[in-house]
Amino acid sequence: MQNRINNLFGIKYPIVSGGMVWCSGGRLAAAVSEAGGLGLIGAGSMTPEILKENIRKCRSLTDKPFGVNVPLIYAEIDAIMRVIDEEEVKIVFTSAGNPKTWTKSLKNNGVTVAHVVSSSKFALKAQDAGVDAVVAEGFEAGGHNGREETTTMVLIPQVRRAIELPLIAAGGIATGEGMAAAVALGADGVQIGTRFALTEESSAHESFKNACLRLPEGETMLILRKLSPTRMIKNDFFKLLIEAENRGASGDELLEIIGKGRSRKGIFEGNLSEGELEIGQACSLINEIEPVENAVKSLIDQYKAATEKLSEMRFN
Amino acid sequence: MQNRINNLFGIKYPIVSGGMVWCSGGRLAAAVSEAGGLGLIGAGSMTPEILKENIRKCRSLTDKPFGVNVPLIYAEIDAIMRVIDEEEVKIVFTSAGNPKTWTKSLKNNGVTVAHVVSSSKFALKAQDAGVDAVVAEGFEAGGHNGREETTTMVLIPQVRRAIELPLIAAGGIATGEGMAAAVALGADGVQIGTRFALTEESSAHESFKNACLRLPEGETMLILRKLSPTRMIKNDFFKLLIEAENRGASGDELLEIIGKGRSRKGIFEGNLSEGELEIGQACSLINEIEPVENAVKSLIDQYKAATEKLSEMRFN
Repeated sequence: MQNRINNLFGIKYPIVSGGMVWCSGGRLAAAVSEAGGLGLIGAGSMTPEILKENIRKCRSLTDKPFGVNVPLIYAEIDAIMRVIDEEEVKIVFTSAGNPKTWTKSLKNNGVTVAHVVSSSKFALKAQDAGVDAVVAEGFEAGGHNGREETTTMVLIPQVRRAIELPLIAAGGIATGEGMAAAVALGADGVQIGTRFALTEESSAHESFKNACLRLPEGETMLILRKLSPTRMIKNDFFKLLIEAENRGASGDELLEIIGKGRSRKGIFEGNLSEGELEIGQACSLINEIEPVENAVKSLIDQYKAATEKLSEMRFN
Repeated sequence: MQNRINNLFGIKYPIVSGGMVWCSGGRLAAAVSEAGGLGLIGAGSMTPEILKENIRKCRSLTDKPFGVNVPLIYAEIDAIMRVIDEEEVKIVFTSAGNPKTWTKSLKNNGVTVAHVVSSSKFALKAQDAGVDAVVAEGFEAGGHNGREETTTMVLIPQVRRAIELPLIAAGGIATGEGMAAAVALGADGVQIGTRFALTEESSAHESFKNACLRLPEGETMLILRKLSPTRMIKNDFFKLLIEAENRGASGDELLEIIGKGRSRKGIFEGNLSEGELEIGQACSLINEIEPVENAVKSLIDQYKAATEKLSEMRFN
């Protein structure tokens, strides 16, 4: 089978793991790559030194391709890019920033570059900047999110019409049915966050993982539109924020409530009350913490079943 | 081909037109039914007398099955249900209310009943109430919307796991690719609003239709969470509302800004500045005002192409 994502990254299945803060360490990335997908180390919650450790750890666990996800608004971005260069990482997914800033120098170093967008306007900008692939992420995704609130169902066909590049769908995809839906909408592959955040190899705290598994439908919500829209669990911390928003609090007031280290506290330290618990809507579809290998196998099995169901539903 | 939605309603394609205020008159419903789908007359913007006229008009234009969509919170609900009984309408889609209130009496009169939900919790309630099918509608849909903001991509697999009943996906589906995606996610059929709202046979004002066609991605937004969450175009009226929300306005203050007849003014009278312009995110995928017959043909053609693309992407 020819698949542009598989060919571009040299992988077996067009399944990329998202670069999720406090979840996507070297262990998770290596497990995803070993299972046939493309594992990404998430630099967003790492110092340059810790990123270097995680790249080395990942390489010690797999000889398959893996990459690093880099939020371009990161304060220490130059040091992060230096580590990527020194450690000879050959796949970089950039997000949260202008793709023009780094794409050229990365590509000059022989790096394959993908950029994460939330609209077809940004997808065109990424294509103009010379990236090799685009990740289009919908409103249902966990954590930081686009301002236009376009869902995966609408975003993927829109981006597919706008660009020629290989397209990876993200947001709300946690099962093989979702993967088949993404392909039907025009994607060449998928980026999966939430499901991999809740695997054994994810570096998130066990309490966070268990809280996500127990979570009823509708218990994540997008908030912080006055700052950077973010999807999180409706815990005590969320309630402080929504009360402030409902009474018209300014961005500065919200920043004061947030303070520092909220996502670390929630996701990595497991403080379910005071932490910022970033996770996608699709966590309601996940019932157990499993090894990555099982998750990938189940995604492929479900994908096959969904495509067979579709092939049975034909019209004259 | 066996399809539960086709069998249930006696139609050729499992495509239902949404009951859209000021769009879904007898003419649109008849056109959808004539094209092989299930046309619905939207009672939400009709007096009982006008509903009666539209039912008679629809029947004069087609001898194929059609139905009426009834928001159960409607003030004149008893009179509306009396018209449905007297005119011997045999298919009713209920929404915005408790399915227990009317399902039994409708079914006793030989009516096939579907109920619109925004969560699997409400889908279970509809199943318990004895409905024949469930419509699950995601966050990307136009107009009134669920409080949990679950998108179609996450909602459909969730509802599919919760209930056994025939399942119709709605929200963000405007193309055959979207239809294939909905089937991959577990739906038996689709309900399409936005695309049919912008056809020739829709009773919406031409100015409204053209404004929707010209609309860039990201130009609809869900708002009014303190009242009833509603997706609309970001026009001048919307800006009044969002400014009020951002300064912490109460539900009562918002009601005062809204006043009366805003959706009629926008959708039916074509006042693009002061009217409430309810439409789904998927309007960015629609490029022309076409006859319903063409829209349905194109949906089926695109569905076939999408399923063929999927059948080519197989994994070992």
